[in-house]
Amino acid sequence: MHAYRSHTCADLTKTDVGATVRLSGWVHRIRDHGGVLFIDLRDHYGVTQVLCDPDSPVFAEVERVRSEWCIRIDGVVKARDESLVNPRLPTGEIEVFIRDMEVLGAAQELPLIVFGDQEYPEETRLRYRYLDLRREAMQRNMTLRSDVVASLRRRMWDSGFREYQTPIITASSPEGARDFLVPSRLHPGRFYALPQAPQQFKQLIMVSGFDKYFQIAPCFRDEDPRADRSPTDFYQLDMEMSFVTQQDVFDTIAPVIAGVFEEYGQGARVDAPADWPQIPYAEAALKYGTDKPDLRNPIEMQDVSEHFRGSGFAIFAKLLEQDGTQIRAIPAPTGGSRKFCDRMNAFAQKEGLPGMGYIFWRAKGDEMEAAGPLAKNIGPERTEAIRQQLGLGVGDAAFFLGGKPQAFERVAGKARDVIGEELGLTEKDRFAFAWIVDFPIYEQDEESGEIDFEHNPFSMPQGGMEALEGNPLDVKGFQYDLACNGYEIVSGAIRNHKPEVMLKAFEIAGYGEDEVKSRFGALFNAFHYGAPPHGGCAAGIDRIVMLLADEMNIREVIMFPMNQRAEDLMMNAPSEPSSDQLMELSLRVIPQD
Amino acid sequence: MHAYRSHTCADLTKTDVGATVRLSGWVHRIRDHGGVLFIDLRDHYGVTQVLCDPDSPVFAEVERVRSEWCIRIDGVVKARDESLVNPRLPTGEIEVFIRDMEVLGAAQELPLIVFGDQEYPEETRLRYRYLDLRREAMQRNMTLRSDVVASLRRRMWDSGFREYQTPIITASSPEGARDFLVPSRLHPGRFYALPQAPQQFKQLIMVSGFDKYFQIAPCFRDEDPRADRSPTDFYQLDMEMSFVTQQDVFDTIAPVIAGVFEEYGQGARVDAPADWPQIPYAEAALKYGTDKPDLRNPIEMQDVSEHFRGSGFAIFAKLLEQDGTQIRAIPAPTGGSRKFCDRMNAFAQKEGLPGMGYIFWRAKGDEMEAAGPLAKNIGPERTEAIRQQLGLGVGDAAFFLGGKPQAFERVAGKARDVIGEELGLTEKDRFAFAWIVDFPIYEQDEESGEIDFEHNPFSMPQGGMEALEGNPLDVKGFQYDLACNGYEIVSGAIRNHKPEVMLKAFEIAGYGEDEVKSRFGALFNAFHYGAPPHGGCAAGIDRIVMLLADEMNIREVIMFPMNQRAEDLMMNAPSEPSSDQLMELSLRVIPQD
Repeated sequence: MHAYRSHTCADLTKTDVGATVRLSGWVHRIRDHGGVLFIDLRDHYGVTQVLCDPDSPVFAEVERVRSEWCIRIDGVVKARDESLVNPRLPTGEIEVFIRDMEVLGAAQELPLIVFGDQEYPEETRLRYRYLDLRREAMQRNMTLRSDVVASLRRRMWDSGFREYQTPIITASSPEGARDFLVPSRLHPGRFYALPQAPQQFKQLIMVSGFDKYFQIAPCFRDEDPRADRSPTDFYQLDMEMSFVTQQDVFDTIAPVIAGVFEEYGQGARVDAPADWPQIPYAEAALKYGTDKPDLRNPIEMQDVSEHFRGSGFAIFAKLLEQDGTQIRAIPAPTGGSRKFCDRMNAFAQKEGLPGMGYIFWRAKGDEMEAAGPLAKNIGPERTEAIRQQLGLGVGDAAFFLGGKPQAFERVAGKARDVIGEELGLTEKDRFAFAWIVDFPIYEQDEESGEIDFEHNPFSMPQGGMEALEGNPLDVKGFQYDLACNGYEIVSGAIRNHKPEVMLKAFEIAGYGEDEVKSRFGALFNAFHYGAPPHGGCAAGIDRIVMLLADEMNIREVIMFPMNQRAEDLMMNAPSEPSSDQLMELSLRVIPQD
Repeated sequence: MHAYRSHTCADLTKTDVGATVRLSGWVHRIRDHGGVLFIDLRDHYGVTQVLCDPDSPVFAEVERVRSEWCIRIDGVVKARDESLVNPRLPTGEIEVFIRDMEVLGAAQELPLIVFGDQEYPEETRLRYRYLDLRREAMQRNMTLRSDVVASLRRRMWDSGFREYQTPIITASSPEGARDFLVPSRLHPGRFYALPQAPQQFKQLIMVSGFDKYFQIAPCFRDEDPRADRSPTDFYQLDMEMSFVTQQDVFDTIAPVIAGVFEEYGQGARVDAPADWPQIPYAEAALKYGTDKPDLRNPIEMQDVSEHFRGSGFAIFAKLLEQDGTQIRAIPAPTGGSRKFCDRMNAFAQKEGLPGMGYIFWRAKGDEMEAAGPLAKNIGPERTEAIRQQLGLGVGDAAFFLGGKPQAFERVAGKARDVIGEELGLTEKDRFAFAWIVDFPIYEQDEESGEIDFEHNPFSMPQGGMEALEGNPLDVKGFQYDLACNGYEIVSGAIRNHKPEVMLKAFEIAGYGEDEVKSRFGALFNAFHYGAPPHGGCAAGIDRIVMLLADEMNIREVIMFPMNQRAEDLMMNAPSEPSSDQLMELSLRVIPQD
């Protein structure tokens, strides 16, 4: 017989009754029922009930074992009494009578109980991650993550892509976030950097003629801690293709993403790629207050400025006299009660706005009445025009926000989420996708008036060189995101592969030719040797797994995450280097005050 | 029609004759045949001959294109004249008459010609890697690498393993080599390290109950440059299993490795895993002079000390009076000529030994005669005994090396390689595998007498605690390598998962409990909470691909390698950080003299 096991803890069924078996695993639970010891023996695959009565030659030894000891037992499989069969367990028909036992690894008193769902502070969970990971939910999340990544790989292979690894110890790549630096020992005073993304490499792979690239790629950004992101590294499904249009990229990646959501979405409805709308950025901002709308929520905001211009509602009427202002309405079907409207108004105040005006419609006898102070101020005609524009009726409400859209859009988007959620309008058990397209290439700093890249300097402007000769703020890029249930899960672009267009694009953002050459030299040089048109995207693995696992915290889907102070308490990282190490790197630490 | 292509450059055949098509690719070669321009248009998939005669509306434009310009052409497919069909090209039956053309990316004068096999200095190849990678051999190598990695993944999945990612920004892991350090911005003066291997994490994954782990893992070692290794990072197929013996690990990984060699070995014979010998380390050293023997070479060295003890060959006879010395013979079937023997003797001298004694056997009339000075010195009886022990005859030779084995073993191993190669004994077109087992856990420093780990402190000593109580130099580990054609391609061990055995093992090597706790704290702590027995191995991806691609330089199988000074000339890494970056990291560079 094998040294450790003849079966896993998920294998034995009625057909094994009478067999002598060997199992290894962890003591999940141990109970003493009238002198008979019942142990739920657990391994990665399942749980088997093993038991030891005082007749067993190893009873005294089995009496010693405690939770989470790792043991090997030999025993005989017996059928459970009909009344004791556990139908929820694949091994629920049998139990194993222990005849021999070996302690493979004893356990000290546990800082974290594996059995059950007791909650522990994150500090404890991360310090004893090897115990935390034994818990059922974590085994499930890690398995899911692994399966999702494997499925993405298979789907990319099946779509004609090959995976190519790109360097991890490489050059500083100023893409917006902060680089992690790695001091070079052989070249004192010089540093490598960890890639924020394989962006430049994947574009160079296209210039090298490889046509279709993907990689499940680690990306490194030295970012300030935030609950929903890893403070050090994260994984992307990174892909790039040559000789493609934006639509080709969509047609390639959409079935991959949809397929994984169908495979691991636990039966939730997955919108078919053909039905994923392509929403221009400006439209998304208007309708949803965000570039990552949750389309499970049917609410669409509308511009209702005209109804307030010159109206009796002085605040909005005055606002509209300023350039660039707007009044937007958030329709709230079934939200027509003062209580609900007041709660939403309070929500907006909590989010830092003066409040949200509202109107709600109620029955008055056989008539319909518009209620709320706003309706009074603007009068019945304008109120009715608004109602008709929004398509609302008795029992519904609408909320209004005014000013420069940048100032209120974010809160409007959040209000839309809360309204959809609270009114039960947002569908459950559905993954709703939308492409967001036509991102502006540039943005203008409101204070300084300076023009800078809105997002990513590598995107091809729609209209090419010609477009760049007009108003930069009107230039849209072949740049796109995929939103799912309110999260951005994919981001990409058709790249700017023409060196002269690249120079012009950078010039508008205030970068001279020398700076382009020094910061993006590899790419800029490569584009002078026959660059193909190319484009691609990157999908956030951690985010996708979070959505599929229905988790809100990224640390629930990462095997060994850092805490929010970017420390690994289990491994003791970061730690003080030895003075020899610093010497070898020609570095000195500047003492802190 | 699609914006860039209706077909790839490998698609068109006779069945497409008459069709109007659109192709995109690079100008591989351009020839002017009596005013007609012939272009070999190349993409990742193949080459298509396109041509332009003066009647074409774009003739003037096509005349402008040069090698490696990226272009899009529209044209009509025509059958080639029977005499012009190129049977070596999938598209060799047709050619495309250009009717329209667009320059997608022009090229400057090329520092490196893509077409043909012209050799360039490595400096040029790496600086213009995007051109170098377009060459046929590099396209093939990179594609092979990608396919090998994909195949390894599929095979591991099919063996019930899941891939789990482990941290890349983590703690210093003193495993022998030098760590790359990453300064922490949030914790001034503290550093992360990049993992030399995911060794500790994979063991923690086993303690976490995951049973079967693998990962195609990047590993980082700050090593001094050497021709056959990457100075920064390399990739391993890293795997680990719980509740297994050494034989289980062999039975799991051998079919994976053999399968990949069969799949991508281009028809070379691959020894079946059942035939892979398990050779104890000491036996490998004796027979092959190395722990990574090339078994395609049938030569096995033998200990022939007894024949020289007290013999007339004073040098060897005297040597043998010292403790720990030995005389070993390298039999060289068919090597029986003075010319060959002298050349081998010179080889040994070039390798730093005083020389190799030899005997060769030749016909003298109907008799056999042993020739060479050594035979004269020891006399015919001893010479004949040696011949019989080695199983040699007329036309054969034997070489002799003496002293402490450590002093000559390496050269003996190299001599065996050269002899096998030069005499044509080493088989071609075969991948020959051998497990090397029973590595010693400890080694003794000859000068200081100190005991240290021979290899890896994580291996389980054979015989456990009991063995550690005897002579440490006698203790063997459950530690193994897999050799293929003279290269180590896999290395692994059953791990020491018992904290008390771990402490004892470290104590022997001079490490106190505090040091174990501070250097291997995570693992040591984890082993106190129910650790399963576990073991695994890691296979070198770069090495395996080198073998399959029949390349001798690791940079031929890496997309964007560093040069031997650990620089990336294309990306300009490492580079000087900005003073802001250093300030943020609380670091100062110590000026060099």
